[in-house]
Amino acid sequence: MEKLTMDNDGFEVAGVGFASRLILGTGGATSLDILEQALRVSGTELTTVSIRHFAAAGCGSVYELLARNSVRPLPNTAGCFTARDAILTAQLAREALETNWIKLEVIADEHTLLPDPIELFTAAEELVNDGFQVFAYTNDDPVMAMRLEQLGVAAVMPAGAPIGSGLGILNPHNISTITARASVPVILDAGVGTASDAAKAMELGCDAVLLASAVTRANNPPLMAAAMRDAVRAGRAARLAGRIVQRDLALASSPDSGMMQALIGDFS
Amino acid sequence: MEKLTMDNDGFEVAGVGFASRLILGTGGATSLDILEQALRVSGTELTTVSIRHFAAAGCGSVYELLARNSVRPLPNTAGCFTARDAILTAQLAREALETNWIKLEVIADEHTLLPDPIELFTAAEELVNDGFQVFAYTNDDPVMAMRLEQLGVAAVMPAGAPIGSGLGILNPHNISTITARASVPVILDAGVGTASDAAKAMELGCDAVLLASAVTRANNPPLMAAAMRDAVRAGRAARLAGRIVQRDLALASSPDSGMMQALIGDFS
Amino acid sequence: MEKLTMDNDGFEVAGVGFASRLILGTGGATSLDILEQALRVSGTELTTVSIRHFAAAGCGSVYELLARNSVRPLPNTAGCFTARDAILTAQLAREALETNWIKLEVIADEHTLLPDPIELFTAAEELVNDGFQVFAYTNDDPVMAMRLEQLGVAAVMPAGAPIGSGLGILNPHNISTITARASVPVILDAGVGTASDAAKAMELGCDAVLLASAVTRANNPPLMAAAMRDAVRAGRAARLAGRIVQRDLALASSPDSGMMQALIGDFS
Amino acid sequence: MEKLTMDNDGFEVAGVGFASRLILGTGGATSLDILEQALRVSGTELTTVSIRHFAAAGCGSVYELLARNSVRPLPNTAGCFTARDAILTAQLAREALETNWIKLEVIADEHTLLPDPIELFTAAEELVNDGFQVFAYTNDDPVMAMRLEQLGVAAVMPAGAPIGSGLGILNPHNISTITARASVPVILDAGVGTASDAAKAMELGCDAVLLASAVTRANNPPLMAAAMRDAVRAGRAARLAGRIVQRDLALASSPDSGMMQALIGDFS
Repeated sequence: MEKLTMDNDGFEVAGVGFASRLILGTGGATSLDILEQALRVSGTELTTVSIRHFAAAGCGSVYELLARNSVRPLPNTAGCFTARDAILTAQLAREALETNWIKLEVIADEHTLLPDPIELFTAAEELVNDGFQVFAYTNDDPVMAMRLEQLGVAAVMPAGAPIGSGLGILNPHNISTITARASVPVILDAGVGTASDAAKAMELGCDAVLLASAVTRANNPPLMAAAMRDAVRAGRAARLAGRIVQRDLALASSPDSGMMQALIGDFS
Repeated sequence: MEKLTMDNDGFEVAGVGFASRLILGTGGATSLDILEQALRVSGTELTTVSIRHFAAAGCGSVYELLARNSVRPLPNTAGCFTARDAILTAQLAREALETNWIKLEVIADEHTLLPDPIELFTAAEELVNDGFQVFAYTNDDPVMAMRLEQLGVAAVMPAGAPIGSGLGILNPHNISTITARASVPVILDAGVGTASDAAKAMELGCDAVLLASAVTRANNPPLMAAAMRDAVRAGRAARLAGRIVQRDLALASSPDSGMMQALIGDFS
Repeated sequence: MEKLTMDNDGFEVAGVGFASRLILGTGGATSLDILEQALRVSGTELTTVSIRHFAAAGCGSVYELLARNSVRPLPNTAGCFTARDAILTAQLAREALETNWIKLEVIADEHTLLPDPIELFTAAEELVNDGFQVFAYTNDDPVMAMRLEQLGVAAVMPAGAPIGSGLGILNPHNISTITARASVPVILDAGVGTASDAAKAMELGCDAVLLASAVTRANNPPLMAAAMRDAVRAGRAARLAGRIVQRDLALASSPDSGMMQALIGDFS
Repeated sequence: MEKLTMDNDGFEVAGVGFASRLILGTGGATSLDILEQALRVSGTELTTVSIRHFAAAGCGSVYELLARNSVRPLPNTAGCFTARDAILTAQLAREALETNWIKLEVIADEHTLLPDPIELFTAAEELVNDGFQVFAYTNDDPVMAMRLEQLGVAAVMPAGAPIGSGLGILNPHNISTITARASVPVILDAGVGTASDAAKAMELGCDAVLLASAVTRANNPPLMAAAMRDAVRAGRAARLAGRIVQRDLALASSPDSGMMQALIGDFS
């Protein structure tokens, strides 16, 4: 029984270690004050921010908020529909924020916000070659995840369900196939609606969970941030602890057929 | 935003308050030492123990273990197949442990360990009339839960799945119907296999979760106990925080269509 | 390969054989004409009718409709909340329709229409002793099904989901446990919303499926009746045909790794 | 009530009409005799065959079997791992079988047989430009389906689950999103394990279902072929018939609160 605590159980991505496996996005927040409360409660050390808004209209205050809470900003290419657009946005982010980290989102349409695999692949290839650490927001296809990893992305970020849907993990089989085969960190991105979804993502072997609207649009964002913090820890611990096998036929867990028979010899 | 922390969020059953909503059973433990570690980590304040074994063969050491960790024992009638048997066992427990609390289990067979609703109902009625605080282990039928409540039980404890199966909550619809209608505490009992199951139970409105083999038979019981502790907290907080509604069509959570439009007025 | 066709695959209940395993209820029909069309298309040979309405207010036309289509009426005790009420209603049905068959429904409340297991058990016991062939509408608890069978009911009729909910089979595990252990026919009753639900019931081992609102309240009841007729046949055939095992890892079904290797020796 | 029968409910793909919406593949068959029985029972008019085997080693007897049963062969590129390979195989098929129809499979590895979206897209584009009617075996990503449609494929064929897994439809949400948006036929391909899976595919809006091992590897392939034939018809009819809405709270379907109130005015 080598590991009783989770104290040193961080994860590393692009060469940087993080103690928290919860990544809280800023999308959907209705006030900076509540966002800041939620971020603090969540313990997150990395958060996504839209570079387009930074560039366009002064979301500097968000960056100040992150800075004073020691949260690393991960610029994203939200709002880009083509590889070209996303690449330009990533380059803009690199200059503006002096980081080569980019969460690469290339979406197919404004309605579903689903990632476009073809544009994503093209953009990822070019950005990797251009020296970026690419965090690729992708569908949950295990082959796509593998192809992105082969390109050299820093992390694959499969969607559990459409952004903002709160539908949870629609295809756990795919997520567990991805995590079983990946050598880079797998970060579940999009779909989480409640705490058990986040726990489940970790149980399926994800290295971290990214979520935004599940917290920012909850009735009580800071309390939901606490829920997600605990859920991610719980799911991670359950993964490491080695869960019991599922059985179709009931197996007694009462002392009658379990412990006591074993113990009677020792303790009677 | 009245409630930011979970500090005072305990629950009360049979007139006694508990800070922890996780109830860890002792069944399936392979050593008293590991059981004690798991209990400590879990933060549980109430645990089930088999009165039959106590009476029969000296599981006194389990009671000592509970006493030194300030965990209240909840004697159960595990191993009873008839109302008569369960009633006698409950009376024995009352004398031996000087408590009128009893977890009432009347099982149909040794193979599935499913509760027998007819025997359960008969036994519950008599025990309530005899002054017991009855914690009734029942199927997940909302009508059965209601009938037990009308008898005057202290808590209804619906099974999520067969004992020891680790199948989770097979019928969330039933559990949420029970919690929506119950006036007494609802404690999910049996079926939990991993952390997300426990979180889900709380999200469905349960007041507490009872589990045993999910922890005692995990590869690393104390670590799984930590997972369950956090999962129960997470699920409870998520319930209170008011989760987002599930949507079939994606709704943007990126700043593009959410926060920033709202914020630009403030920050541009 | 003994059985290639389904031609002789009827089922028997209470000593009477039926070629069709689909039992179409009359509840929810909006006109007698459409109901008759749906019944004809469905091929059903047995249908439930409310004795209360017959007695009260002249639903004689429904019985004429059934008679001219050679559909056997199965009177039910819909609307009864207590064992006493249900017993009286069953006796009334026996006199009025000259049959000792009764579908025993004892519901807990008008809102959910869920069966009350305690009242059901009491009524079933008395009706069996009084010479009735009892078709017991029950929850999906495997122990309850077994207890009813031990009383001597003609068939157990577990609910897949609440009446009229269209939620399908909320707990397939329970239904398959019931069918694996039952010696009397198991008829899935309530919950079916669409064709795949009915097919699934048969795949889980049910002997027949009873549904009403899924057909009577569909946009096109006769077409949905055809769908249900085919679905029940499909599910039954699939059960008999022996489905492939589910596998987590993909197994090739293309000729590459399957047939052709085997065949090349024979056919090249 | 315009449509009471399914008699004219065929579907059209690449300009050709088919009365049957079940496409039975040949993979996994253990004898030509049983395959022929299954094909006949199934009513299929289109079936996939591996061109690689045809070219390599004389599966001519399969083609003769198809010819005498008036089943159109749809050559596939099973066993191809790259766009280049698949394109060459398609061209070979066109010459050998004198058809420009090709089921395009480009798989990522022999273990999972999952399609490779990047190679698939490249190959589909070139084959469409080369005059092929491309039936594209793809993952269940709605965006990928749309991109393939924009290339000009004849049909998109999303996988319900990995080939040969029998896991059914792992992500119904994705399949229904695809069918809601597609202008070309959507044919569910891979994953079907039993009849209810096939019915469900049609209920989700698919135009047809392709399956192989669910039939060829069942204990009784011809009987399972009958099950699939009926299931596809059932699911299609249910889709057209307009199913009832799912409700969380029970709605009475017994005559008490439905038909009879309505009918009493007319029939009493």
